[in-house]
Amino acid sequence: MASGLNYVEEIEKCLRDISIIVKKKGREIYSDYSITPPQFEALLILWEYGNMTIGELSNKMFLAYSTMTDLIDRMEKNNLVKRVRDDRDRRVVHVHLLQEGIAVIEEVLQKRQNYLKSVLRNFSKEEIIQLKNSLKKLQQEMIE
Amino acid sequence: MASGLNYVEEIEKCLRDISIIVKKKGREIYSDYSITPPQFEALLILWEYGNMTIGELSNKMFLAYSTMTDLIDRMEKNNLVKRVRDDRDRRVVHVHLLQEGIAVIEEVLQKRQNYLKSVLRNFSKEEIIQLKNSLKKLQQEMIE
Repeated sequence: MASGLNYVEEIEKCLRDISIIVKKKGREIYSDYSITPPQFEALLILWEYGNMTIGELSNKMFLAYSTMTDLIDRMEKNNLVKRVRDDRDRRVVHVHLLQEGIAVIEEVLQKRQNYLKSVLRNFSKEEIIQLKNSLKKLQQEMIE
Repeated sequence: MASGLNYVEEIEKCLRDISIIVKKKGREIYSDYSITPPQFEALLILWEYGNMTIGELSNKMFLAYSTMTDLIDRMEKNNLVKRVRDDRDRRVVHVHLLQEGIAVIEEVLQKRQNYLKSVLRNFSKEEIIQLKNSLKKLQQEMIE
């Protein structure tokens, strides 16, 4: 039981350290583009879930509506997204991902994968599969 | 080679999704205390590396000096840290972690570990060890 807790402590620390390293690496990658980490997160959500209202987006990102509005303003200025009024209800505004936003996502993800590929160069094929399986299971259990 | 790239893509996506879930969970945990994620990160750095100047802390967190100063102001108001002038050079100011800051760290880490423990309840002991080993290796390779 005591050793079980030790593993949990170690895994928690590892996940924390990895996320700090990935975040720092992410900042380096973003700095080549004119976007911030929350802006990239917003782009990814629109890409994965499709266009949505600012309210829906602020809920998904756990940000205040006013913060989200500022974020969208800056992204609209950079041609990453645009506001589009709903055809049937003009009061409703949807955020649409633009071609330039998609290009930024694809380039950043590609760079992240290249970084991860270089990190994994000393892993055997079995170790890579093991890592993938462990992470998949962790992710599934977190979602449930 | 093609399947190798697929694993990298999958691992990158898994790491991204896990960090989003952990971040959301983190926000829930922090909300019981009056701290924000960057404030908690600052507390952790002071805890792990010891007291340091605002400049050193802003470097470690990749934040602007002015942003860091605001952060320290708010944390000082909440009795989590305090500014202490250097005995030998009065121009140098160190940030010291206070007892209340340490208490917040310990409580938040305990809650994170409890959360992870509940996530891992469907893992066998072998799967937990495998997860720990995979993450350790990933972390080591990222540091190098």
